[in-house]
This record gives sequence, structure tokens and C-alpha cells, in this order.
Amino acid sequence: MKREIDLDLKQRAQKVLPNGMYGHESTLLLPESYPQFFSKAEGAYLWDADGNKYLDFMCAYGPNVLGYADARINEVAVAQLEKGDAMTGPSPAMVELAEVMTDMVSHADWAMFCKNGTDATTMAKTIARAQTSKRIILVAAGAYHGAAPWCTPMPSGVIDEDRAHIQMYDYNSVKSLEAAVAEAGDDLAGVFATPFKHDAFTDQALPDPAYAKRARELCDQTGALLIVDDIRAGFRLTRDCSWELIGVRPDLSTWGKSFANGLPISALLGSNSTREGAGSIYATGSFWFSAVPMVAALKTLQILRESDYLEHMIALGEQLRAGLQSAADEAGMGFRQTGPVQMPLFLFDDDPDFRTGFAWSEAMLRRGIYVHPWHNMFLCQAMTEADIDLTIAAAREAFAEVKQARTSLEPHPVVAAMFASMAAE
Amino acid sequence: MKREIDLDLKQRAQKVLPNGMYGHESTLLLPESYPQFFSKAEGAYLWDADGNKYLDFMCAYGPNVLGYADARINEVAVAQLEKGDAMTGPSPAMVELAEVMTDMVSHADWAMFCKNGTDATTMAKTIARAQTSKRIILVAAGAYHGAAPWCTPMPSGVIDEDRAHIQMYDYNSVKSLEAAVAEAGDDLAGVFATPFKHDAFTDQALPDPAYAKRARELCDQTGALLIVDDIRAGFRLTRDCSWELIGVRPDLSTWGKSFANGLPISALLGSNSTREGAGSIYATGSFWFSAVPMVAALKTLQILRESDYLEHMIALGEQLRAGLQSAADEAGMGFRQTGPVQMPLFLFDDDPDFRTGFAWSEAMLRRGIYVHPWHNMFLCQAMTEADIDLTIAAAREAFAEVKQARTSLEPHPVVAAMFASMAAE
Repeated sequence: MKREIDLDLKQRAQKVLPNGMYGHESTLLLPESYPQFFSKAEGAYLWDADGNKYLDFMCAYGPNVLGYADARINEVAVAQLEKGDAMTGPSPAMVELAEVMTDMVSHADWAMFCKNGTDATTMAKTIARAQTSKRIILVAAGAYHGAAPWCTPMPSGVIDEDRAHIQMYDYNSVKSLEAAVAEAGDDLAGVFATPFKHDAFTDQALPDPAYAKRARELCDQTGALLIVDDIRAGFRLTRDCSWELIGVRPDLSTWGKSFANGLPISALLGSNSTREGAGSIYATGSFWFSAVPMVAALKTLQILRESDYLEHMIALGEQLRAGLQSAADEAGMGFRQTGPVQMPLFLFDDDPDFRTGFAWSEAMLRRGIYVHPWHNMFLCQAMTEADIDLTIAAAREAFAEVKQARTSLEPHPVVAAMFASMAAE
Repeated sequence: MKREIDLDLKQRAQKVLPNGMYGHESTLLLPESYPQFFSKAEGAYLWDADGNKYLDFMCAYGPNVLGYADARINEVAVAQLEKGDAMTGPSPAMVELAEVMTDMVSHADWAMFCKNGTDATTMAKTIARAQTSKRIILVAAGAYHGAAPWCTPMPSGVIDEDRAHIQMYDYNSVKSLEAAVAEAGDDLAGVFATPFKHDAFTDQALPDPAYAKRARELCDQTGALLIVDDIRAGFRLTRDCSWELIGVRPDLSTWGKSFANGLPISALLGSNSTREGAGSIYATGSFWFSAVPMVAALKTLQILRESDYLEHMIALGEQLRAGLQSAADEAGMGFRQTGPVQMPLFLFDDDPDFRTGFAWSEAMLRRGIYVHPWHNMFLCQAMTEADIDLTIAAAREAFAEVKQARTSLEPHPVVAAMFASMAAE
């Protein structure tokens, strides 16, 4: 693979961006051969700055649900851009979008639109406190709910008070949740839950319905708000809030990533029981009322309602899971695929420092398949059976290659340093 | 003016948006006749949902600096949208944009891009604490630095700990700043300052150079970071950080609103002295790496560097200020215009509950001029001398109309209730 342009950009970036890149799209914790910069994206495919082409299982970390540069979405986005985007007030599309989302999402009676997932989760926390006049917020340990001081996973620059009254419980553990609720006493404002456990660096887990139902009961008993953080999974599991699949309805749900197919918009949806709290807080942003992402969301949601995008992704996900399992079995590699098939995570047995996963991912990348060694991935509507066949064929070669090289693999230096520093804490 | 569509949308919005609208573009605190929804924007003009046309002195609360739907910006935005927007990594435009901004802004050696102004100010606060290992952040009382719990002006749902170690001082007061720094002792992490005082509901004030210079000295003495929040004023006062005009260079500066002419992007710029702190924090967002706003920013900044947009806005601002002053004088109305001419604020003498300002603004709106009765306004490059002439002619009529009606004016009920509740606190 050519790398000249990417390496040159990375060198320039070292001067003008902290660490050469920041945030979740930094390749600092990815295999060395992973490109940092991309010049083109179309359908399920991505081209790096040097022109290398990849079938992309990250889908921009979620936003790409239909396919990159989808003509149906871009057409309405461009038309609206010419009419007006950021104006001195919202466009009528804002009302229409709130109507559509509260119609699609069973628990929701009102909507607030914003830009970042963190905006939505932070508003949810604030509304929970405003609505209940209580303070304690329960969050599952290890769950990602954003990158503001109250929730960022790497708390440099965060002071103790930023995390005050944020308490942890163990996802899927009724006992742990009950204990945390008991400890909160009469000061419990809200309980956050991701729809399934999709923490980085660890196997994913589907929600235990007993845990989800108990969370609802405990919130009903205490008056706390149940908040489902659907930012990562929203509309990839069902055309409603993800916990509708297990019959549990939250008071608030947070949305982002995919519902405008990559145009920048996120949302907080709430039930009538939270309307007063929502109406009492002040939250805003310069671009929260922009029309272009709203018309893109309207069109995306129409396609999600009217097409078989979900059934298609699930079918491809099942094909992928079965094919990869066969290939791993043939190679005699212990390979774990967890989470919903359309949002898979791949980890290797006996791979505590991820060196096998990193080597396998690099072997896939060399074959034109972009997979992630420790973060959940995403399928999109634009993927085809042929794409999955290609992926399985590449995986078969990659398993063989890695098996042969396994004894000589080295850990990734930055990842190794990170685990060492975590172990020292 | 026709209002059917706007009123219908407002009624629908009551059901699906908290209070019918939230945030800074809500018309809840504006005169009753102000439209909430807009269907089109072009150049300096705005059309509401009913098709009524206005010369818009809000410029989307800042983002519109060249003109709405500027063909030069939309052309590059559309081309990039077709190549790729939100991808699995940034595009090369991110490096180029960081290079351009650190080149234009004298103090800046590195850049971080984000979506909201609040993202940038929150990162600045966090970096100040990370860089200094201290906690106290000084903020001028009444200044707006965003809408997160640590800074939102309406703290419903905010708990005491969210504001821990955030201390106030009086803008432009050396004495007050010195006292706040002394009280912070050896725990001072950072000092925020807007480039000029542009608080809502009150006269604006240019920065006293003695205050700005003293802020720099105190930060140098204590090791705290000086943070200029240029989100509202950036590139409307100069083609550099606004405090370059008075010879004071901050450690961090925050940017947003206008530098991509309305496409959604904000930024935090920093000096080398803050690079370690910046590299240590984790902050990110699903759409922070999207390419479309970055190419729009590159094109906008090129136009800002190569055109006389700034001199043009200042000339129009001076024409406007002089013309309005004459018109007010002729009518015998006490009318105060404060702040830089290109970011004016209009207030009336003897108008504690703003009823005169509201009536005058409504009289302007009826004449097709959109002004704001208590927030600073913005000029843009697309405005012309003829637009300003129109505005002055409308103002002459509006002054006469309001003068005649003055004794029968009533206060705005929501504004009156707000002031009553503030007075009661």
C-alpha cells in the first residue's frame, strides 16, 4: 500500500494538532499501518489519502448507515444548503423532524436537537436533575456516554467536582444496580444505560431483560429518570428506541451518529413526564438549528422506515459472523464475535495485549478490509453479500497469516503503555 | 405581514419541542410579532416561513459573515459532500485548516476543531486545569461562554459542584481582577475574557487596554492561562485574535460562529505553552472530523484574508451608527449604540423593561428590517450602502412611531416575568 501522502500529512499534523490528532478517530491506538487521513468515501467504501481503497466496517464510527455520499441524502442536503442552513431561526424542517422522531420512537413526546452525542447525554443528565430536584446519576462502569468532563474516559483536566454525584454500577447486574440505587437513597435523579454493553477493549454483551426491567422498576419506585443512550446503536437494532426490543421504555433517550446518515445532528428525546424539566434548562449551540442536517435526517428516517435496511444489515451480519467463525475454526484460532451481528466486535482468545488482534486487523487492512481491533464495528445498507464474501475470504488468509506469525508478534507500544499505566493505578 | 404558516408551526412545535422552542433562537424573549421559522436566506436577507422578507442584522447570531448561501462557499461544500464528509478519519483538509488558522492567529501554534462554541470553551477550561494542575477559573460576571452546566446562564438542573472553582470578576476592572486573582492564591488555572463586553440586555463596552494587559501580566505571574473567547467576535474585529488590536496575546482562544460562514465548526487555538495540556485531555465528537465544514472554513478564511470584507463592514457600520444617531436625535429619543460598529447593540434611555426597544424593533420588523432588542447584532459582507440607507429610513419612521405610542406601550410579559424573578432572587 502507498503511504507517502498519509505519512506526510501525519508529520504536518504533529505541528498543528495536539499529538498529531485527537479524539476517537486518532490512529494513535491503532496498528501502525492504519491510515489517518481519508480523501473519499462512497457506499461501503473508503479511500485513504494515498488512494488505497477499503471496505469500511467502521462506517465513520456509526454515522454511515445507508452508505457514504448517498445520492438520496445529498440531493436534499444540497437543495437545502442553497435555500438556507444556519439562519436567524430554525426552518420548518425542525418541527417536522421532531414530529417524525417522536412518532417513530414509542416513548418520546418531545425532541431537542443538538450537534454532539455529548450534548444529548449532558442535557439528559441536567434534565434528570432539573425534573427530580435530585442529584445522583448512575452510570454503568466502563460505558461511554461522551467526552465532557463529567463523562470523558480519560479525565486529564477533570476535577473531582466534575464527577460529583456520578455513581457506577455494573451493566447487566441486577444486584449491583439495586445496591447503587439503595446507596443513592432519596437523591437519585437518573440511571443511564446503553442499549447493550458496547464498551471498548472488551466483549460486547446483549442486555439481560431482567436487568433492564429492574432498572425501569427502580426508576418508577424512586422517581428517577431512566435514560437509554442510543447514540451508538440507535436505528441499527430497531426502528424505535433499542430497548423496545426487550419491552422497556425509558423516560429519555439520546440519539446521534446515524440518523442523518453522516450530516451533523444529534438528539435528545423525552416522555411527557420529563417535559417540565426539559423546558427549564438552557442548552443551545450556534449550529443546533441549522436546516441542512434536519432535512437530511428527514430523508434518512424516511428511508429507514420504508426500506429493508435493517433486515439487510442483519442478514449480512449473520453471513459475516458464520463465515468468520468457520474461517477461524479452520485455522484453529480462538476468535470471539460479540454483540448484535450488525454491530460486531472481534477479539482473540489468549490475547491480553491485543497483539494478535492488531496483527489480524493489519492483515485484513492489507487485503482492503478496514476492521477495528478493539472497538465495535458497524454495517451499513450499502454493503452487499459480495462484500461479505470478500471479507470472509480475506479473513481466511489473515487467520492463516497471523497463526503462522503468532509467536513472533510484538505488542503495540502505545497500547502496551496504556495498559501498563492502567495496571499501575 | 402574513403569519399563518409561522403561527401554525409554532402551535405544532408546542407539542414536540420543550416550550415550543429552546435555545438562543427561540422567540420567547422577543416581541410577539417576531417570526420563529425561516424558509430561505440569501446574502443579507432572510425570508420567514410565510415569505416575508427581512434585511437581517442578526446574521444567524454570527455565523453569516460573507452572506447567506454564498456561492463561493456552497460550491466547495457541495463538492466535498460528494467526495466525503463524516468518514472513518479526517480528510487532509483538517491539517490544512489547522495550518491556516495557526498562521492567521498570531498566538496560535496548534488547533483543535469541534462543533459548538461550548465545546471549545469547555476544552479551554479543561486544558487550563490539565496544563497547570490547578483548579480555579475566572470568568467575567455576566459574560456568556456557552451553555454547558459549568457556564449556562440559566442554571436549572445545574448542581453546585458543576460551578466549583469557577469565580467571577468584573469585566474591565483591574481592581476586581486583581482581587479575584489574589483570592485564587496558588490555585489559579485560567482567566476567561471576551474580546469586548458583549453581554445581553446591557450596553456593550470595548476592552480597557489596562485591564487586558493586567490580565496578561497576572497570568504570567501565576502561570494561569489567559483565554480569549472570540467565538462571537472572531474575525469581525480583525483577521487575527481580537486582542491583537490592543497588543495582548492569550494562551488559548476559542472560535466558532463565522469562520466557515455558517457551516458547523468551532475551534480552540493554543500556544506552544499549552500543547502538553491539550495533548493530555480527551475530547471528541461524532462529527468533529467531518470534511465539509473544514473545506468551507478554508474557503471562508481565504476570502477573509483576500477581500476587504472587514473594512466594508466597518464602513457600513459607521454609516449605520451615524444615520441612526441622527434619526434618534431628530425624534428626540435617547438611543444608545454600543460596541464595535460592525457588532452593534441598540438600547433606549429610560427603558428598564425594554418596552420602548421592543416597540421600536417591531416597528423596524414591519418595515422589513430584523433587529434585536437586547442582543448584539452582526453586519456581513453582503450588506450594501443601499441596505444601510433603507435601515436608516425605516428607523426614522420607527422612532417617530414609537415616540408617539410611548405612553401607551406595555412591557413584554415574558421579559417582565424574567426581570421580576431576577429581582426576587
